[in-house]
Amino acid sequence: MYDHVKGFRDFYAPEMAARRETIDTVESVARGYGFREVGTPALESAQMYADKSGEEILEELYVFEDKGGRKVALTPELTPTVARMVVAKQQALAKPIKWFSTRPFWRYEQVQQGRFREFYQTNIDIFGSSEPTADAEVLAVAADALTGLGLEPTDFEFRVSHRDILGGLLAAFDGEIDQQAAIRAVDKREKIERDSYADLLTTAGLSPAQVDRFDDLLTTPADRLTELVSFAGTDRVAAAVGNLQAVLDAAADLGVREYCSLSLTTARGLDYYTGVVFECFDATGDVSRSVFGGGRYDDLIEGFGGQPTPAVGVAPGYATLALLCQRAGVWPAEELATDYYVLQVGETRETAARIARDLRGRGHVVESDVSGRSFGAQLDYADSINAETVVIVGERDLADGEVTLKQMSSGDQQQVPVEAFPGDHDRPTVDDFD
Amino acid sequence: MYDHVKGFRDFYAPEMAARRETIDTVESVARGYGFREVGTPALESAQMYADKSGEEILEELYVFEDKGGRKVALTPELTPTVARMVVAKQQALAKPIKWFSTRPFWRYEQVQQGRFREFYQTNIDIFGSSEPTADAEVLAVAADALTGLGLEPTDFEFRVSHRDILGGLLAAFDGEIDQQAAIRAVDKREKIERDSYADLLTTAGLSPAQVDRFDDLLTTPADRLTELVSFAGTDRVAAAVGNLQAVLDAAADLGVREYCSLSLTTARGLDYYTGVVFECFDATGDVSRSVFGGGRYDDLIEGFGGQPTPAVGVAPGYATLALLCQRAGVWPAEELATDYYVLQVGETRETAARIARDLRGRGHVVESDVSGRSFGAQLDYADSINAETVVIVGERDLADGEVTLKQMSSGDQQQVPVEAFPGDHDRPTVDDFD
Repeated sequence: MYDHVKGFRDFYAPEMAARRETIDTVESVARGYGFREVGTPALESAQMYADKSGEEILEELYVFEDKGGRKVALTPELTPTVARMVVAKQQALAKPIKWFSTRPFWRYEQVQQGRFREFYQTNIDIFGSSEPTADAEVLAVAADALTGLGLEPTDFEFRVSHRDILGGLLAAFDGEIDQQAAIRAVDKREKIERDSYADLLTTAGLSPAQVDRFDDLLTTPADRLTELVSFAGTDRVAAAVGNLQAVLDAAADLGVREYCSLSLTTARGLDYYTGVVFECFDATGDVSRSVFGGGRYDDLIEGFGGQPTPAVGVAPGYATLALLCQRAGVWPAEELATDYYVLQVGETRETAARIARDLRGRGHVVESDVSGRSFGAQLDYADSINAETVVIVGERDLADGEVTLKQMSSGDQQQVPVEAFPGDHDRPTVDDFD
Repeated sequence: MYDHVKGFRDFYAPEMAARRETIDTVESVARGYGFREVGTPALESAQMYADKSGEEILEELYVFEDKGGRKVALTPELTPTVARMVVAKQQALAKPIKWFSTRPFWRYEQVQQGRFREFYQTNIDIFGSSEPTADAEVLAVAADALTGLGLEPTDFEFRVSHRDILGGLLAAFDGEIDQQAAIRAVDKREKIERDSYADLLTTAGLSPAQVDRFDDLLTTPADRLTELVSFAGTDRVAAAVGNLQAVLDAAADLGVREYCSLSLTTARGLDYYTGVVFECFDATGDVSRSVFGGGRYDDLIEGFGGQPTPAVGVAPGYATLALLCQRAGVWPAEELATDYYVLQVGETRETAARIARDLRGRGHVVESDVSGRSFGAQLDYADSINAETVVIVGERDLADGEVTLKQMSSGDQQQVPVEAFPGDHDRPTVDDFD
């Protein structure tokens, strides 16, 4: 007996039904906003990740040499791939480019709750607009997806920040400060001890006094952002504060301001973010990890050799999203759903097949016997797949020109003329023939 | 600028729209028959493939050692994975188990037309029934999927054979014959020169006279299958001929007999098949390769350490299916589709956002400006994404309580009261307000 590889999961049909419903909801919201699906490869040149994030990133990836001597990596995220695709057809693509894609990614990580080595997410990105409306639309898609899943405003919050505020504040301190390292420290603020956090900032170049001051600044409330501008005294911070405010205003226009709270301690770990960044959290705190995040990455396309092209995106991941939905009690039922079971006994195959075909033509899930089973065994099976209605096609009934409908929940039965079934009915039930 | 890895493809939005429509059709037919989606990992233990097909198979796969020292392979096909999953939950799963899954697979192959190193297919399998109805249902799902794509009965044919007829005939010859090798030779019959084919059969143990006789037997017409039974004189061939006939009869019950033709020279390359096998071909021959295939593999689950569990399946692959659909002129248009573009100018954002939200709530694809563009630039963009209707939300109109609808195909415009839009209309167009 073989086992699956550690950190990789098998999704059996009931669980997959719940996952598919969730993915369908997210994708249908993205489609509604005019995001277009793209298809992307599972392997990329390992060099692409090394160039973008440093050679050390390869330690966390599935990297190997293929039989043609290419050093390749199983894609750990979609952003570099879509950036590559934008660069490859930059001239031909009308802007804004609005893409989405749902697929697995892979990282060689410690396996824990909500974290696997193979994980699924829907990436949703806009390329070619630097307007606050674009950031707000990404927030709106994410919010509509979550409410579409049945989550309430009290269930989740988007903690919104701005990379250039963080960078601008750091630049305002005396001394040689490694801004990327300091921002990575901020990203870890909620996850590590206070001392370790201070150590990381000190290593990044801040003095102990600067660490305290910086951390105070990070907790500035939303209505006092001008204090940050005063502290830094630079156009960069003034512009960043203005941009953040404009994004929140645009989010209000789109009806999703209520989900957003200012949180300068939200930094996002990845180096490529340049503007507004945000993370979605469980508002109750029961799910302690960030559910997913997103933000603006205006320099990546140019860094990949393309024309300067602003970009902003979000990527709901299904492992953590499932935890949030389960906590909130809105995770779809993990069970099979069947509209009809056509129970066929005796020499009635042709009629049974015709009825099954007609019901399928109306868009229903219709099973019938493929195992040569008895009446009773078929009824048991129909029950096991949660069939709503069983259509019994028996020899004696059929000789009288009839079939029998059985509603499985109530046990109610009704004989109906075979030529009138399903007839004009889109979704015939016992009640239609009372 | 980075390139994609050789044999791997990027699907941009227009092409992906056509692929998604195709995949949706195939999946929706499978769902209609009660096949349930499962989710499966991209990596499996390489040993699983070596055990099943011999160490040499690893030469064709993407195999590597992960950072934990596991020898893993990118999955080249789904059958071993679903067999592993059946074995892992054998007791808990109600039979028949009917599963489908659409995803990429990977093989390190020569890249050519319709063949890539990353390729997508929908696997559709039934576990737990040895009845001819199960084989026929798999044929029916495949046929309904193809006709659902718009293909006509004259566009494709299923060439149906039976592994046990081939094996039984080979066993009837004197001499030591390697049946698997001979069946692999039959699988290559149409693809190689007659001499090479004869050589392969000779290498498998047949004498030159036996090669001729065997090949004659393979071209026995459907109405003279009893001659094969007479030739072999074994229960095995008699049972196989009876089973093949029963499957074709069951296919007739399900309304798909017309797509099936008997073809004993259809063998399928994989060793694990045990009963009926079939391949779908372009009936015109323009697409010369097999489009996809399927068949019965009753021994695999037991070979994987499970209880004996009969199984039958089919796996439409999208690279060759696209070639067939394109040849037949039924490949979906590779273009973006947009129901509405909400064109917003001046201080009308809130109303525009409300209208966009309402239209999205009715299930439509609705874009609006995220780039701060002028009226004309927005109209050009709306045209570039094939918007059917543009809803113009302008300041002056709005002051009069109106918005303007513009049908892009005709250029017709109509002013409508803003409070009545979209109102009761599910899919409002200019015509609704004439």
